Amino acid sequence: MVNDKILKMAKGEIPAELVLKHGRIVDVFNERLIREDIAIADGKIIGIGDYEGIKEIDFEENIIAPGFIDGHLHFESAMVRVDEFAAWIIPRGTTTVFADPHEIANVAGLDGIKYFLDRGTELPWNFNLMLPSCVPATANETSGAVLTADKLEKLKEAEGIFGLGEVMDFVGVIKGDNKIWDKIDMIGDKFIDGHAPGVSGKNLNAYLLGGIMADHECTEPEEALEKVTKGMYVMIREGSVTRDLVSLLPAVNNSNLSRLLFATDDRDPEDLYENGHMNFVIKKAIQNGISPLRAIKLATINSANALDLKNVGAIAPGYKADLVILDNLKDFNVEKVFKDGQLVAENESLIVNLPEIKEGKSEKIFKSVNIGKLKKADFDLPDFKEYRVMSLIKDQIVTGKETIKLENEVKVDDLVANNLVKIAVVERHKKTGNVGLGLLKGFGLRKGAIAISIGHDSHNIIVVGLNSQDMYRAVKEIERLQGGIAVVESGQLIDCLSLEIAGLMSKDSIPEVAKKLRKMKEKVYSMGVTRQSPFMTLSFMALPVIPSLKITDQGLFDIDENKFVSLGVGD
Amino acid sequence: MVNDKILKMAKGEIPAELVLKHGRIVDVFNERLIREDIAIADGKIIGIGDYEGIKEIDFEENIIAPGFIDGHLHFESAMVRVDEFAAWIIPRGTTTVFADPHEIANVAGLDGIKYFLDRGTELPWNFNLMLPSCVPATANETSGAVLTADKLEKLKEAEGIFGLGEVMDFVGVIKGDNKIWDKIDMIGDKFIDGHAPGVSGKNLNAYLLGGIMADHECTEPEEALEKVTKGMYVMIREGSVTRDLVSLLPAVNNSNLSRLLFATDDRDPEDLYENGHMNFVIKKAIQNGISPLRAIKLATINSANALDLKNVGAIAPGYKADLVILDNLKDFNVEKVFKDGQLVAENESLIVNLPEIKEGKSEKIFKSVNIGKLKKADFDLPDFKEYRVMSLIKDQIVTGKETIKLENEVKVDDLVANNLVKIAVVERHKKTGNVGLGLLKGFGLRKGAIAISIGHDSHNIIVVGLNSQDMYRAVKEIERLQGGIAVVESGQLIDCLSLEIAGLMSKDSIPEVAKKLRKMKEKVYSMGVTRQSPFMTLSFMALPVIPSLKITDQGLFDIDENKFVSLGVGD
Repeated sequence: MVNDKILKMAKGEIPAELVLKHGRIVDVFNERLIREDIAIADGKIIGIGDYEGIKEIDFEENIIAPGFIDGHLHFESAMVRVDEFAAWIIPRGTTTVFADPHEIANVAGLDGIKYFLDRGTELPWNFNLMLPSCVPATANETSGAVLTADKLEKLKEAEGIFGLGEVMDFVGVIKGDNKIWDKIDMIGDKFIDGHAPGVSGKNLNAYLLGGIMADHECTEPEEALEKVTKGMYVMIREGSVTRDLVSLLPAVNNSNLSRLLFATDDRDPEDLYENGHMNFVIKKAIQNGISPLRAIKLATINSANALDLKNVGAIAPGYKADLVILDNLKDFNVEKVFKDGQLVAENESLIVNLPEIKEGKSEKIFKSVNIGKLKKADFDLPDFKEYRVMSLIKDQIVTGKETIKLENEVKVDDLVANNLVKIAVVERHKKTGNVGLGLLKGFGLRKGAIAISIGHDSHNIIVVGLNSQDMYRAVKEIERLQGGIAVVESGQLIDCLSLEIAGLMSKDSIPEVAKKLRKMKEKVYSMGVTRQSPFMTLSFMALPVIPSLKITDQGLFDIDENKFVSLGVGD
Repeated sequence: MVNDKILKMAKGEIPAELVLKHGRIVDVFNERLIREDIAIADGKIIGIGDYEGIKEIDFEENIIAPGFIDGHLHFESAMVRVDEFAAWIIPRGTTTVFADPHEIANVAGLDGIKYFLDRGTELPWNFNLMLPSCVPATANETSGAVLTADKLEKLKEAEGIFGLGEVMDFVGVIKGDNKIWDKIDMIGDKFIDGHAPGVSGKNLNAYLLGGIMADHECTEPEEALEKVTKGMYVMIREGSVTRDLVSLLPAVNNSNLSRLLFATDDRDPEDLYENGHMNFVIKKAIQNGISPLRAIKLATINSANALDLKNVGAIAPGYKADLVILDNLKDFNVEKVFKDGQLVAENESLIVNLPEIKEGKSEKIFKSVNIGKLKKADFDLPDFKEYRVMSLIKDQIVTGKETIKLENEVKVDDLVANNLVKIAVVERHKKTGNVGLGLLKGFGLRKGAIAISIGHDSHNIIVVGLNSQDMYRAVKEIERLQGGIAVVESGQLIDCLSLEIAGLMSKDSIPEVAKKLRKMKEKVYSMGVTRQSPFMTLSFMALPVIPSLKITDQGLFDIDENKFVSLGVGD
């Protein structure tokens, strides 16, 4: 509807509501800086030029960029509430998120999705939630919920729902499995995000017949280029564990520039606390040789275009006044952030009050740890001639598979000597009593046990340890906390972090959780752990879609063979 | 819905329906050629790779490009029926059109739009029709219809309707005129095409608040770059009269590549016959120094992205199998065209039968020339001391304005000596009897008269001549033909072309109309006309939105002053 007052402001006939004066504006379309004023009214940019404002702020010393867009992320990885996550990332320049509530949905089903929806839409960002396509991720672990196409459809038209979340079940798509195709059909014309690590050639062709539009799982430029050739938007993902930026930047060129974008996928609290969010990704890209304006383009208009979101990602008339005020393009410090024309953050702190979060009482979320009958002996290794071993690979969540011969009635010393720990997954949704048991190489732990209720993707309890007593104790501690991380040594709880929201997230802030995790990590390093991100590493050990050998509550699973295997070789 | 058979074909487990073997495929995303097979089934591309097909065609010697897209055109400019137009451009590689039925709607209202809709959707192309936003284009001429937002809305959800056609009324948008803003509101989230020649700075800002997404009226790179900066997609238009390609190619760079695209807007029958359609535009771009793959990109995926049309514009799994087989990237001859996987054209000829066109009997279309009482004396010049003169500018449809002193009872010799002709616009929709009279400089005609029922945008009858008798005769001839072009000399009809469809289009084919026009042009050249496109030049003389001085059925209109002016200076 025509608004004469705003038209007059745009024409400069009357002062605009707010004018940001004299800044150097990032023109993401042409990758150039232009020194102009930005006129703002009604939350929108209404003019670029020489303007007077009822309110004016001078930014002569600054660069003004569009608010950053994260093309794909999981709130749960930040291990805090949605509002705490927002309070952290918005002051660092991220004003638009595309989030997949895959983790909370695997614990709490539709209740989990609604929990994010109810809270996310009220915050000062552009909130876009995907319907998680893979709950459960596989039939080879026990999840807290099963979300069929019918169930998901109930939320399809809810405010904040944007499309179908990363279709991890590429095997299902390629095979023609109705379970995943029904979801593809259900979502209709909305966006379908992808997840197809290493899928190429004819399998990729078949996958794309599902209408899947983007991928964030490329690790090499060749993979990215093939996906671009075949019409996908490629998200260069820089997470905390999976970091593809440096490897993938060479895939960006003058020809395909508009087909790539940045995303974070999973960033953990410490990484967020120490480095930041999209601001860090952009800065790192610049440090790795891409031009600053191009790096900003990959985190703004490219993302908006790829995801088909209108009126965000650029500083242009009619666009949302989501703006990031930077000191310069080298230090890349975010000084101020405007959302819908309102100054919402200064000096990396939110300066507006967020709506108060009503936590609700969903048992699926706040009473999510439900363990069946459990005994110490569940963690005792059976005697085999030779054992299968999951082996960690540096900076990867894929694992190798090895075998090892151990003397029976395996001793702690034997495990330590071979850099092994016992690893178990304890089902926590349906009190099945399921416990999967295995061996993990390369973690470094030399004593005690660590348990965690974050276990991708079904989020059963993952526990590693040298002895059954400590492992049992650690799991019981998680039960007591109703979710969290517990470190046990010699039967004693050494440290713990409570994650009472679906066993995935804390009620504390990013700095608080980061500091607690830092302290816990120091503790486990002192217990021998050599893996830099010990908790996140553990949380990926139960993901039976990532090669090669993983463990679920139902046992050891060989992804290459697509079947459960015994812990004992030849057993 | 999952189709197991097609998935199997994509995976190469069974032969695909059709495989184009060994071609060099244009990867528009990466601007590279890849030598692979294209597997096709169910009208779609289902795989790129090494495939076997139930049917195979070898294209080892060829380049395979996606079907070309024309981002903005008017069927009426081709002066033939929609099916004849399709039969001409599809064999030349254009498989997707975005057409604005602005002209026929100005004559016949909703009947005109439906006439195209009924016929266009049945043809082997991707047919996208815009609802014309400016019927009438201005209040300063008498049109055949007035299409308010309410009326347009009736067709909004009709099959084939894509969005709101070029918003030429930029003055109305900028001023906040409800008539145009109601149409913007009416169209909702659909695409809104623009038309804003020379609009820049704050006026452009205001215009963009209408949500207008594209423009095809830039003539200089600076104008294009400002529009790109402000978020518009810029269509580089290469029409028959307005040719911006050479001037605008320098605006295309590695940074803004995805924001520009090609369009033809208005291509006349001779140009289509002699040069072609998008194939000509691409070839001309290549000849002017842009890389062949980039030129193709600007006519395929860029257009699809700009207009937000999915699954066309590239050769990738899931995309429509709309393919152009070229001999090479230099000669750029279109050898074959596939639409939805079907071979529809070879050697620039359609090889499939088009559905038979039922012309219907709409009086608004087939009895569209309705002239009020007309007499010879309507074309007599009144006596003034000094006359206002519309002056032609080489290769432009903008006109200059001049004045001239002539002896009263102006003689033919005086007109000829000053390179002047009389020009009149005769209202032909509502029998108002309106006749606007003026003087035109630079047309070259030295005797006789020429009349035409194409007169942008209201399509009244435009007639030029040296004497009232011949002008009268020419107009009456148009009435007899119910639309067309008539050339008269010494009271005799010398030649004519019938345009019985709304007074705009012939029932003949492109070659037939082109040849007739060529013959008529030779005739009028022999009568002194120096203007290369005499008929199209005339048809733009009644467009009172293009500077500076124009003539309508209501009189001379000064666009700069935005008012009617007398033919006599100081009158």
